[in-house]
Amino acid sequence: MKIVFIGSGNLATHLSMALQNAGEEIIQIYSRTFCNANILAEKLHCEATNSIDEVFPNADVYIFSIKDDALASVATKLCHRNPKSLFLHTAGSVPMALFEGKAQHYGVLYPMQTFSKEREVDFKEIPCFIEASDKESLATIHRLAESISENVIETSSETRRKLHLAAVFACNMTNHCYRLAERVLEEDNIDFRLFLPLIKETANKVTYLSPREAQTGPMVRNDKSIIDSQLCLITDKRTQDIYRLFAESIYEDCKRSK
Amino acid sequence: MKIVFIGSGNLATHLSMALQNAGEEIIQIYSRTFCNANILAEKLHCEATNSIDEVFPNADVYIFSIKDDALASVATKLCHRNPKSLFLHTAGSVPMALFEGKAQHYGVLYPMQTFSKEREVDFKEIPCFIEASDKESLATIHRLAESISENVIETSSETRRKLHLAAVFACNMTNHCYRLAERVLEEDNIDFRLFLPLIKETANKVTYLSPREAQTGPMVRNDKSIIDSQLCLITDKRTQDIYRLFAESIYEDCKRSK
Repeated sequence: MKIVFIGSGNLATHLSMALQNAGEEIIQIYSRTFCNANILAEKLHCEATNSIDEVFPNADVYIFSIKDDALASVATKLCHRNPKSLFLHTAGSVPMALFEGKAQHYGVLYPMQTFSKEREVDFKEIPCFIEASDKESLATIHRLAESISENVIETSSETRRKLHLAAVFACNMTNHCYRLAERVLEEDNIDFRLFLPLIKETANKVTYLSPREAQTGPMVRNDKSIIDSQLCLITDKRTQDIYRLFAESIYEDCKRSK
Repeated sequence: MKIVFIGSGNLATHLSMALQNAGEEIIQIYSRTFCNANILAEKLHCEATNSIDEVFPNADVYIFSIKDDALASVATKLCHRNPKSLFLHTAGSVPMALFEGKAQHYGVLYPMQTFSKEREVDFKEIPCFIEASDKESLATIHRLAESISENVIETSSETRRKLHLAAVFACNMTNHCYRLAERVLEEDNIDFRLFLPLIKETANKVTYLSPREAQTGPMVRNDKSIIDSQLCLITDKRTQDIYRLFAESIYEDCKRSK
């Protein structure tokens, strides 16, 4: 299949490379910034453009992997010119209906993972949530997704929104907890790498125990003397508020389970 | 060395078993609840008691691994009877000075990890932070710690408090982020296990990138339309407040790095 990528960010980079490795033909990368389009195009040995007018017509599939608020306007410009093509976006929180009235064949392929350009990922493990406007499009998206992932799940736009929210908790907010830890350590010049075994075990534990069963520490015991003494060590108001809310939330959650 | 454990919780269980595997002789477990003492004592093939008066005298080492607020009173009762022994506690946030005036030889051995009884851990990887009242005690604690861990670090009580705070961020609060994700998924009966690849990659990423470099998602881009739409999906006020504070904190933190 001939595929054009609209976007050249982290997700576009990893997804386009995975699809190419699976034998698909990526023919062009579009990005508002030519330089960004070109960096990815060079990796894929394909064309680059920063002009919507120069996007190749009649590709089999156009995959949009750009900021959510730019999606609608770029789709409006591109879809009507290529009525036979399949249009996909890759966003967690944008309903498939974005393409309604713009394209005939459309859908979503949302790979749930955190992508950074500097870091390789194994696409096989990544759950890909898909949705389509019609049976034929669904079959195509299914085939594309299954060529790169062993975990393809058909999901409605409404459920995908929930998945995206849960991913923000499990990934972005988790990662910020690591950052808040690092900030405490920086004050005393303690190497963050000392914390990697703890971080690894915390993540591995929930493979075997539910997050509730896995919980430990002063908050689950509502150990007020430690909680108060730790609050005194935190130097900024917002982080204190975060700590306090977690102390309450963890204690409430574990009480409920008893 | 003949060692008595005061406490039979998660940490006491894992630490006593690791020390026994390393060749130390655990002779007795004390716990307020006989049944708890006995469960651990059976694993270790040693004695159990729930009476302070029956704690064996003249052990080489007494290791206290009980709730922080119970430490002082139990230490007061035990230490003076055994003036030649070494007394240790394993708590992150309790200063070594707790033993001052009670014992002659004392110190701390704080293994920084999250312990649950149901889950085995590899002690070798766990950083153990140690502190002692005198050179001789330090040498003993060093030897004990090195018999189970490859990562033994001498640390003051003040730094240990910071380490414990950072551990609450990196472990307990992280684990609660998993739990908040799970709660969103429960509403739609989505299997939490689908999130394990995301959780694993989020944890692995910070081995190679700093938490700041590793950050992705709507909060780091300050993508207001997604943030507002996700806030609407959250059904309880406290979790909304947590989400909002993280959105601010992540955005602020990444702005500072630019």
